[in-house]
Amino acid sequence: MTGFDTAEFAARTERAQALMGDAGIGAMLLTTEPDVRYFTGFLTRFWESPTRPWFVIVPASGKPVAVIPGIGADLMGQTWVDDIRTWSAPDLSDDGISLLCDTLRDVAGQNPIAVPDGHETHVRMPLADLARLQQSINIMSDNGIMRQLRMIKSPAEIAKVKRACQIAGKAFARVPEIARDGVPLDDVFRAFQMLCLEEGADWVPYLAGAAAQGGYSDVISPAHGKPLQSGDVLMLDTGLVHDGYFSDFNRNWAVTQAKTDAQEAHAQLIAATAAGFATARAGNTAADVYQAMQQVLSDRSDGGSSGRLGHGLGMSLTEWPSLIPTDHTMLEPGMILTLEPVVATEQGIMVHEENIVVTTAEPYYISPPAKPELPVI
Amino acid sequence: MTGFDTAEFAARTERAQALMGDAGIGAMLLTTEPDVRYFTGFLTRFWESPTRPWFVIVPASGKPVAVIPGIGADLMGQTWVDDIRTWSAPDLSDDGISLLCDTLRDVAGQNPIAVPDGHETHVRMPLADLARLQQSINIMSDNGIMRQLRMIKSPAEIAKVKRACQIAGKAFARVPEIARDGVPLDDVFRAFQMLCLEEGADWVPYLAGAAAQGGYSDVISPAHGKPLQSGDVLMLDTGLVHDGYFSDFNRNWAVTQAKTDAQEAHAQLIAATAAGFATARAGNTAADVYQAMQQVLSDRSDGGSSGRLGHGLGMSLTEWPSLIPTDHTMLEPGMILTLEPVVATEQGIMVHEENIVVTTAEPYYISPPAKPELPVI
Repeated sequence: MTGFDTAEFAARTERAQALMGDAGIGAMLLTTEPDVRYFTGFLTRFWESPTRPWFVIVPASGKPVAVIPGIGADLMGQTWVDDIRTWSAPDLSDDGISLLCDTLRDVAGQNPIAVPDGHETHVRMPLADLARLQQSINIMSDNGIMRQLRMIKSPAEIAKVKRACQIAGKAFARVPEIARDGVPLDDVFRAFQMLCLEEGADWVPYLAGAAAQGGYSDVISPAHGKPLQSGDVLMLDTGLVHDGYFSDFNRNWAVTQAKTDAQEAHAQLIAATAAGFATARAGNTAADVYQAMQQVLSDRSDGGSSGRLGHGLGMSLTEWPSLIPTDHTMLEPGMILTLEPVVATEQGIMVHEENIVVTTAEPYYISPPAKPELPVI
Repeated sequence: MTGFDTAEFAARTERAQALMGDAGIGAMLLTTEPDVRYFTGFLTRFWESPTRPWFVIVPASGKPVAVIPGIGADLMGQTWVDDIRTWSAPDLSDDGISLLCDTLRDVAGQNPIAVPDGHETHVRMPLADLARLQQSINIMSDNGIMRQLRMIKSPAEIAKVKRACQIAGKAFARVPEIARDGVPLDDVFRAFQMLCLEEGADWVPYLAGAAAQGGYSDVISPAHGKPLQSGDVLMLDTGLVHDGYFSDFNRNWAVTQAKTDAQEAHAQLIAATAAGFATARAGNTAADVYQAMQQVLSDRSDGGSSGRLGHGLGMSLTEWPSLIPTDHTMLEPGMILTLEPVVATEQGIMVHEENIVVTTAEPYYISPPAKPELPVI
């Protein structure tokens, strides 16, 4: 079973329309992969190509309307969307803009059109085309509606992220098969992605990591070709996809031998994660979870170089909210969060990450939570 | 050996600055992964996270300037860029915009700031932040400078795409190991990505394909779970990455037995590819290559449902130009193109794709060109 029942998309659309009504929005215009997919179920890796814009309009009532390149008509036709308007893209003189303007007027008349415009968003179309659109159509902010909708996951969405996490957990458990003293880090990266696929990932959009003596300097780098060596801390952080939903957690290992400092740092990361977990309850804020973790880390804090200690997770690798002191988003049942503490070691930093679900009572882990002991490979 | 010598980035920057001077541009502001990487060598899969904006400024003279989240400071510090200005992102009140404005004024004074704004581009930052930026800074079009620069590849860039194509070619050659009558298509997709990694891909950002009787209906879908069956045409189209550069070609196979119609369609695709290849010479246009291919396809043309018969290739899966009747881009030595004819079959469509390099004389294939015979697995 892949995808969702039509009822899931209908419920999402109705929730959007209720919020749009409250905000005086006549239609929402969506241009990015997760926003388009949220209302339609349109799942394709073709977004990797920057050539074509794709548009979905959420009207004040009724089903979403797709305004898309002809190459996507067949796939969009398999979703619950009925009104699919296409043009032959790329069109160098008018790449869907007239069709989009006409459709927006059909759908919304003279009522205001909103687009997501806040943090974590962008408008995925050429700036010159956006300017052209704005000559005909007044565009307003969606007032955070998309953020609010996507932040609270349905049970069906949680099941998909949970499955992605199970797959990643199985792949992480098999890392001793592929990583040991002498294996180049880029080979570890390739082999780990193969493990993710073997365990059931549809694809592996994200893998970062590092291997260095007693701690690493960076958590977003691609792999270098240096062989692992005794005393290295190896870290792998993956965002793999199952049916369009992400996992996002990592694991650390010591190569051959664990230095005392790295062991202590790891135990402290697990303690900070536990403190975040205990605080991640409905009614607390994202900032509260940050503070709970930071308190445990204080003597080893890295000074906040990574910018935050966790975030939302779902259709994108990272979503709202951010675990930072200034994000006062109230936690609500159905939110999926990553807890991602970072500490300074004698020789760099170490990061740990788990994925949890916020409920009406205690949260629960959907990544298999790591033990305090730094595993040795 | 990964990445490029500093001389490569210096040459790119100098070419940009010459074009900027001609266009009266004081600085170029870049916000997307390939544009940022083009001038800096900043290679990370962290762009998968939509949370943080990243900015690079190309000044009228001298090295690029980076204005980036602190989490990227270490990695950017390993590039040739010296002037790296960071903020702690995400910052909910000012996510780098003041720092960006100040830096643009430092770098360009009151001279015009340009951004890429044409086809295949977008500005990767929140629309509200862009509006805020535009209150302080007048933004103009880059007049296609980025397109022009990235379209002509250096020998070092061609070597990377060539290597990516070699890896994909080896993976395609091994498809008979993983695909046969009875294997579900989604298992084929997973196993094929594993073959790509085993053969040396760093990661596999793109895989699409299909399997259906005598031709498929769609070329951008993810895999369904239906088992392959006798008479199916299986198609796999991958964009894998080697050191930040893409391959983009596909292969077709008949499962157990090839129907006459599918065999003929495949032979015609190969003939069209050859016609495109023969026409892909400096001085001809993208439209000329399209016409040469379309002439061979005429009696089996699918009516242009996919929109084009090929495109540029490099740091992105698809780049300028497009092989369409209206793209009059002159071919130049150093361009990498995909030739991607599509035909109608009795039961759907079939698509074939190869990758070539335009030179001062004949082009050459960097994907191992397929034979007219539709292979049977």
